[in-house]
Amino acid sequence: MATGAQALLQTLVGAGVTTCFTNPGTSEMHFVAALDQVPEMRAVLTLFEGVATGAADGYARMTGRPAATLLHLGPGLGNGLANLHNARRARVPLLNIIGDHATYHVPFDAQLQSDIETVARNVSPHWVRTATSPLTLTRDATDAIAAACGPPPRIATLIVPADVSWGEDAEPAQPLPLATAPSAASSAIDDIRDVLGAGHRTALLLGGAALHGPALRTAGRIAAATGAKLFAEVFPARIERGAGLPQVERIAYFAEMVTAQLAGFQHLVLVDATAPVSFFGYPGKKSYLVPDGCRVHQLCHDTDDVATSLAALADAVGASGQPPTGQTTPGQPPSGRAPASPQPVHVRPGHGPLTADSVCRTVAALLPHGAIVSDEALTSGSTFAAASAGAQPHDVLTLAGGAIGQGLPVAVGAAIACPDRPVIALEADGSAMYTIQSLWTMAHENLDITVVILNNRSYGILNVELQRVQASAAGPRSAAQLDLGNPNLDFVSLGTGLGVPSVRSTTTLEFAAQLANALAEPGPHLIEAVIPQVFTGRKLRALPYALRAMESLPAPLAKAVKRRIAP
Amino acid sequence: MATGAQALLQTLVGAGVTTCFTNPGTSEMHFVAALDQVPEMRAVLTLFEGVATGAADGYARMTGRPAATLLHLGPGLGNGLANLHNARRARVPLLNIIGDHATYHVPFDAQLQSDIETVARNVSPHWVRTATSPLTLTRDATDAIAAACGPPPRIATLIVPADVSWGEDAEPAQPLPLATAPSAASSAIDDIRDVLGAGHRTALLLGGAALHGPALRTAGRIAAATGAKLFAEVFPARIERGAGLPQVERIAYFAEMVTAQLAGFQHLVLVDATAPVSFFGYPGKKSYLVPDGCRVHQLCHDTDDVATSLAALADAVGASGQPPTGQTTPGQPPSGRAPASPQPVHVRPGHGPLTADSVCRTVAALLPHGAIVSDEALTSGSTFAAASAGAQPHDVLTLAGGAIGQGLPVAVGAAIACPDRPVIALEADGSAMYTIQSLWTMAHENLDITVVILNNRSYGILNVELQRVQASAAGPRSAAQLDLGNPNLDFVSLGTGLGVPSVRSTTTLEFAAQLANALAEPGPHLIEAVIPQVFTGRKLRALPYALRAMESLPAPLAKAVKRRIAP
Repeated sequence: MATGAQALLQTLVGAGVTTCFTNPGTSEMHFVAALDQVPEMRAVLTLFEGVATGAADGYARMTGRPAATLLHLGPGLGNGLANLHNARRARVPLLNIIGDHATYHVPFDAQLQSDIETVARNVSPHWVRTATSPLTLTRDATDAIAAACGPPPRIATLIVPADVSWGEDAEPAQPLPLATAPSAASSAIDDIRDVLGAGHRTALLLGGAALHGPALRTAGRIAAATGAKLFAEVFPARIERGAGLPQVERIAYFAEMVTAQLAGFQHLVLVDATAPVSFFGYPGKKSYLVPDGCRVHQLCHDTDDVATSLAALADAVGASGQPPTGQTTPGQPPSGRAPASPQPVHVRPGHGPLTADSVCRTVAALLPHGAIVSDEALTSGSTFAAASAGAQPHDVLTLAGGAIGQGLPVAVGAAIACPDRPVIALEADGSAMYTIQSLWTMAHENLDITVVILNNRSYGILNVELQRVQASAAGPRSAAQLDLGNPNLDFVSLGTGLGVPSVRSTTTLEFAAQLANALAEPGPHLIEAVIPQVFTGRKLRALPYALRAMESLPAPLAKAVKRRIAP
Repeated sequence: MATGAQALLQTLVGAGVTTCFTNPGTSEMHFVAALDQVPEMRAVLTLFEGVATGAADGYARMTGRPAATLLHLGPGLGNGLANLHNARRARVPLLNIIGDHATYHVPFDAQLQSDIETVARNVSPHWVRTATSPLTLTRDATDAIAAACGPPPRIATLIVPADVSWGEDAEPAQPLPLATAPSAASSAIDDIRDVLGAGHRTALLLGGAALHGPALRTAGRIAAATGAKLFAEVFPARIERGAGLPQVERIAYFAEMVTAQLAGFQHLVLVDATAPVSFFGYPGKKSYLVPDGCRVHQLCHDTDDVATSLAALADAVGASGQPPTGQTTPGQPPSGRAPASPQPVHVRPGHGPLTADSVCRTVAALLPHGAIVSDEALTSGSTFAAASAGAQPHDVLTLAGGAIGQGLPVAVGAAIACPDRPVIALEADGSAMYTIQSLWTMAHENLDITVVILNNRSYGILNVELQRVQASAAGPRSAAQLDLGNPNLDFVSLGTGLGVPSVRSTTTLEFAAQLANALAEPGPHLIEAVIPQVFTGRKLRALPYALRAMESLPAPLAKAVKRRIAP
């Protein structure tokens, strides 16, 4: 005879949900107790709910499967909300399990009572349910898992009152059959085949599932066969990159750069992506960034299978036997991972002070084969993409929903998902502070993660944005709101305090040596790279004008300007 | 000609909202820029939104006036939600200002787009509005402030799209007149007067505004004149305590203790409080804790003025000239703060290892006159109330909504509100980790806060709760979910990393010296007190039985048991 919690855990592991990122409280104690009965469930304790939700996101990005979170009532969900927002935008499968007061206790409006379902709808608009009985709890759970797995993958939130957890006579439920995603409609494939064959300037904009695995390689073959350009959405959940992989240019953060990137294209084919829009709205600037006159086509719907749809398109354009574009040389096998042939990355280790660029180049140069890079370096990481284009094959996980504080948690989840792959978190100082508690879980679970904190002692991006929104009256009191100095954050102390071996580097030589050490040794490490801001002084003042000017420049010239301001 | 943001700031300071706890992003850059035009607004930067919202709560608890928060879209509000939950339960006035995308940018569903209003309703159910134009923004703001100030005080949430902030031609609005709260209905006063005069065992349960200032003193006089017992709600937002102040016994956390506390009372008079209910529901235990046969009376509604209502009741029972109960001696002036006559607190500093109890006693002994204690020590702080009953007069701010992670932020807000009063944060290790970023703001603003971390290296309360919910099958895998060791959190490193001078103590003597030093020196300090858990081994195993047994014991015996298990 099982409690609701025991049957719930058995149901989860039976359906393949075998990892749970937790921050439990009293209402989740039966779930916690049941861990001893269901050893197939790995419960990863976090010290803050945003770590748990971000880790579940990172896990799903790397496995395609949902992890569970275990959160404590409305406030616990609140703390996890920002990274659930990122997970929603990353379009990953994820299952929240939120403990609640016992059903009969709710009317008494005790201190922790709040409207959990309402909060959950922000991140989980398609599936929120409060369980009502231990007898139906496990069916609720299989419904939730089915909703999470999709297609399309989504966040499902199951609220479990304490008495439903501790109630008896519950039985595990069999997993529901996974829905299979169909291929794109043949009309869409025919339309896009005609576009690709017409000799117009055409780009494929890849997002979501199109940026890794067989789908990415198929897209590369289509590009090679048709001459189409490959773009990636601005903040991909997961993009496979490096030597032997199709080269895909990421849509830029700054709207003006996007305008330059897309200038001259007559057709834009969306593959599991949406048409590019500005990250923020700015006074007098466009939000929708597809050039006038450029026709937008959509290969498939979010319920379609992306890899199959791309394969059908490749067949239609006769690209199936083609090698993908990029560094791959002709004659390589058309499917599967191409053999690595990393291009040397130019980095000059020296005793000069570190810069954001030298950090990015050094990381790119030392990137191990198969590394996973959780990139939340923002302004300081702007040169990493270029530096690592020819590096060892790797995955990059980015800030899908724009809510900073996801880089370290996503690294945790990726490391749990892929224990045999090294994880590198490229992390900005400001962003790191939202979920710094992640470091403790890295140490607690002895995860093979190297955290590189790019510490420029400011909210660097806001220095740029303050100018870009034309808040011209800004003075010292507003500047103080963007300044992370006084006192300086000491990430070596913070890392040490959370149990992660931590060092500081101030020269490129030092950084290269420390990074090599960290990568050679298993378990977590932290390197604090103290660097100047990327956009300061003359460069910062010139930025808005340069960006604005780009919109009216011919594409090649705009590209040159782009390289100069964010090389 | 002002921008919306400039006029908004002018409107806020014009209405007395002169402090804003911030964590801004791009959509708030015009608000940030306007700080240079409106120097009357003090903007306090935080590194995490939960610090901002908790600080606004602490500020309001000490001033009775709303501070503003400045948060970045839905995810920023999400990060602030847990401490807004606490603020809602503390029933303080508070004004959230949440930046949003420009109105015309919303339809493009950019990465940070989410349904902010829905999230806000969780903590701000009575007043949420999205501004639509710079011309009406400041009227929205005065409405929001009026809603926040009440009566009753509430959280108001004003969502400000970026183009409303940067739009021109805005004008500051005059503050709306503050609504005045009436006294309680005379029928209620007459009813309660009769109850108090009838010679039945009667208690006043004080909450909210009844626990400090003139209201508390009036309640003390009523108790002295009528023999009524004074209770305080379990987690008061602010309770004034110490020598010369009426003695008020706080309702216990454990339901079984509450049963013992209330046993034998025939009448319970609620004064700005709700009838006691169990913090959580437990299998087979009652949620509603008022004894059978005890009649509940309510002095006033939440729109009534508590101090005036109590004064009217004091008049009715002839208590106006009475000295309040407690340590006050006859002949002292009946109104205003009675002269301090602190009773010696017994503490034996020595070289023996620290315990939670010796920390609590030492803090009580060294408590400066007028100190503000932000108490989130949970199990480790269980003896502080008894130890400090006769200490120097002080205020205690507690975990009003039960969402841990409020102690450090509330200390920040209290220190900003009362710069001439020392603040002590009694903080549990687990709770501290939710909003540890608070320490940086303490250093940045050089706040006079002494943070005492009671580090028992576990979620101590959950060890108790795991037993109390009768999750008897718990084994090592569940125990691991409550264990904060491996690695141990090193709060000296964490404090140092965030810029706060930090030390560790392991003996009572060491702790007493370090605390005395910290209190003597202005600015922030952190002391990590490494202590064993309060409830372990035999004591923990016996707890559920002792608590259960209490319900059937006569009141005096139950009290004795209570003292033994949580002295």
